[in-house]
Amino acid sequence: MRSFVVIGQKATASDDFLMDDLPGTSGRLDVLLRCVRAATLYSHGLRRDVVVYLVLFGGPRAPRILRFDGKARFLRPDERSLATLARKMLATRADADARGFVEFRAGIAVASGGLSAVLADLRGASLYVLEEGAPDLRTERSLAHGDAAFFIGDHTGFDEATRTQLAEAHARAIGAGPVSLHAEDVVTIVSNELDRREALSGRDESVQKRNPGLT
Amino acid sequence: MRSFVVIGQKATASDDFLMDDLPGTSGRLDVLLRCVRAATLYSHGLRRDVVVYLVLFGGPRAPRILRFDGKARFLRPDERSLATLARKMLATRADADARGFVEFRAGIAVASGGLSAVLADLRGASLYVLEEGAPDLRTERSLAHGDAAFFIGDHTGFDEATRTQLAEAHARAIGAGPVSLHAEDVVTIVSNELDRREALSGRDESVQKRNPGLT
Repeated sequence: MRSFVVIGQKATASDDFLMDDLPGTSGRLDVLLRCVRAATLYSHGLRRDVVVYLVLFGGPRAPRILRFDGKARFLRPDERSLATLARKMLATRADADARGFVEFRAGIAVASGGLSAVLADLRGASLYVLEEGAPDLRTERSLAHGDAAFFIGDHTGFDEATRTQLAEAHARAIGAGPVSLHAEDVVTIVSNELDRREALSGRDESVQKRNPGLT
Repeated sequence: MRSFVVIGQKATASDDFLMDDLPGTSGRLDVLLRCVRAATLYSHGLRRDVVVYLVLFGGPRAPRILRFDGKARFLRPDERSLATLARKMLATRADADARGFVEFRAGIAVASGGLSAVLADLRGASLYVLEEGAPDLRTERSLAHGDAAFFIGDHTGFDEATRTQLAEAHARAIGAGPVSLHAEDVVTIVSNELDRREALSGRDESVQKRNPGLT
């Protein structure tokens, strides 16, 4: 299982944004929603082994988290559809008095809480934080062995509290290349690297099955 | 200079789509507009060395081409802003009786025509076509030596005529990984590979400058 956790420092945790001016009225929730597409959808399909957390630190109901996984069959790639879904999720009060994630629809859940709630939900996954100038993900040997979660900042990066919390959780810093990219592009590049490693390891296994004498 | 050419087999070449239902009314122009963001924008900036062509084969005014380059300073990342801009560009009649590209604003141009008009505009660039199962772009040695143009299909891939025309133009097939991806993710992965190669070649040059005896 791969998880992506996108931190929106100003992204609104309530539903009072304008659909016709998402960047201007939602604390750049548009950045985070584009990450949902990049993480969960490929050509004509939905990735089943992915979970995306959007951590919303903006507005009166913050902090809150939106969680999307591979059972969310009706996810659509365009920003307006994703914003419509997010607005419905943010309008619920079901998470206000609950602990942990409350399912909104199949594969889609909401929680009141911030990074700690995400870390609790990720139990056992290897943690990586995407940082500019960190060692290249292409040469990170530990990737693709078991569950992994990737923390990505929005257009403003990470705040100090988040950085400290991730360090305490032993998140390993990795980089996605020499250029400072949009969050959704980072999701795409991490996904591509994991796809390549999984394909390679699948091919290795099938080779071993055909040649059981090989070790 | 790097160029991305995205082929929209059904994407509308006229301005009669609904802003509130872009995927349902524009022949999936939304797919192509997301490629503009992926190709031209990075965190807090616009790439100056990139040109994007959207080739529109749908609707009554097809074929037409929208061209965006690094002089287009007011490009915004969200889909609605890009769709608003595209609608204004598609409403013009300036290209109807003109040959080649007609500038709409600085860095933004429109042309009546299809793939041949793009190929004429690209004069001299090495051509690559992104195909599933083709040799991996990571091992393609010719990349990043001079101007390169990358042809990418929309959610329906390439039609036979396009495929034939690209083969006749000696476009080389390359692949972006083992999973069939959205067009905008392919743009991101190609951009990341080129960024890495340029950074590496820049570093090599700076090493050579510091150590002029090295060859």
